[in-house]
Amino acid sequence: MTRSAAPDPPRRTGERRARIGGRSERVVRDVLQAAAAELGKVGYAALRVENVAAAAGVNKTTVYRRWPAKADLVAAAIREMRGPAQAPPDTGSLRGDLLHLIREYAARAASPEKKILARMLTVEQDHPEVKQLVRALREEHQAPWLAVIRRAAARGELRPGSDPRLIQEAITAPVFSRLFRHDEPVDDAYLGALVDLVARGAESSR
Amino acid sequence: MTRSAAPDPPRRTGERRARIGGRSERVVRDVLQAAAAELGKVGYAALRVENVAAAAGVNKTTVYRRWPAKADLVAAAIREMRGPAQAPPDTGSLRGDLLHLIREYAARAASPEKKILARMLTVEQDHPEVKQLVRALREEHQAPWLAVIRRAAARGELRPGSDPRLIQEAITAPVFSRLFRHDEPVDDAYLGALVDLVARGAESSR
Repeated sequence: MTRSAAPDPPRRTGERRARIGGRSERVVRDVLQAAAAELGKVGYAALRVENVAAAAGVNKTTVYRRWPAKADLVAAAIREMRGPAQAPPDTGSLRGDLLHLIREYAARAASPEKKILARMLTVEQDHPEVKQLVRALREEHQAPWLAVIRRAAARGELRPGSDPRLIQEAITAPVFSRLFRHDEPVDDAYLGALVDLVARGAESSR
Repeated sequence: MTRSAAPDPPRRTGERRARIGGRSERVVRDVLQAAAAELGKVGYAALRVENVAAAAGVNKTTVYRRWPAKADLVAAAIREMRGPAQAPPDTGSLRGDLLHLIREYAARAASPEKKILARMLTVEQDHPEVKQLVRALREEHQAPWLAVIRRAAARGELRPGSDPRLIQEAITAPVFSRLFRHDEPVDDAYLGALVDLVARGAESSR
């Protein structure tokens, strides 16, 4: 389904929002999509803002006005691909919360763009700007995980001295490895067994 | 310290072994080292056996005689870098065995060659020969892990229905992620806490 650039009768939901944003919103979307595609093709180091602007059909000054540095543009493109930040879920139990988060992670991570991106960032991680970007994105990614784990700790559900980041890593890293390193499917039974294994190890009692 | 190719007086330990193998053993070592270096530089797809032969100072037919296909040469080079296959440890406890294995993994994984290699293989994993090679290497890597976990299961130490591969992945994947994706140090306290977390989740009782 494509979206016409020309105004048409206000039939669809979201039409009002598109109207308010208008051309500027469309430009942002086109530039970020072009940046993501270019990033997948050539990686961070070789990405040229001029080429992104050309692919999006806009002037490069238009791009620079909104994103003064390449790092800003790439960060915005990745955040756009990733979608809005996740609020920490509240299913009523630590296992329920962790399962919710890892299901979302697996569902998002399985997209082809994410795959290309993850590889690029693995290969280019020694680039100082990539390093900084990866660190910032990682912190954003971890935030809802740390929130639900700390909430469970505050309720006394975790063993004293539990490390929230370790718990998060023990659940997300195996899923990343399967999807990106070994190209193996991750089904819901796998996710459930993984959450059970790690949560059981972290919980203060059974 | 370089090793002279010309025969010299038998003073050093290992001299006898070198004598027995002689030139042929030296050729193997030089070719495999050159193949590993080339792999780190250009990756699998772009690696040319001719260039490896030239870098090792041998004729390409010498290389082809021993390793008929590029995949054979690369597999041999990686196995040489990795060192001899690990026998499953037997420390007397599952946690002791797992800690032994993850310490060895972290120590080996931290070498610069391994880092280059891991990234290459992450990026080139869609190449059919790389896929096959990675699968074979992964199975070799998993073997001692599965052996110690199955032994613990046979002793009744694990919860019924425990998945040995899941346990192995929950321990190795976070270490891989820290070292290769996030360039973060992994110290012994981290390894101990990770093994405790996952083993506690897998054990049938505390």
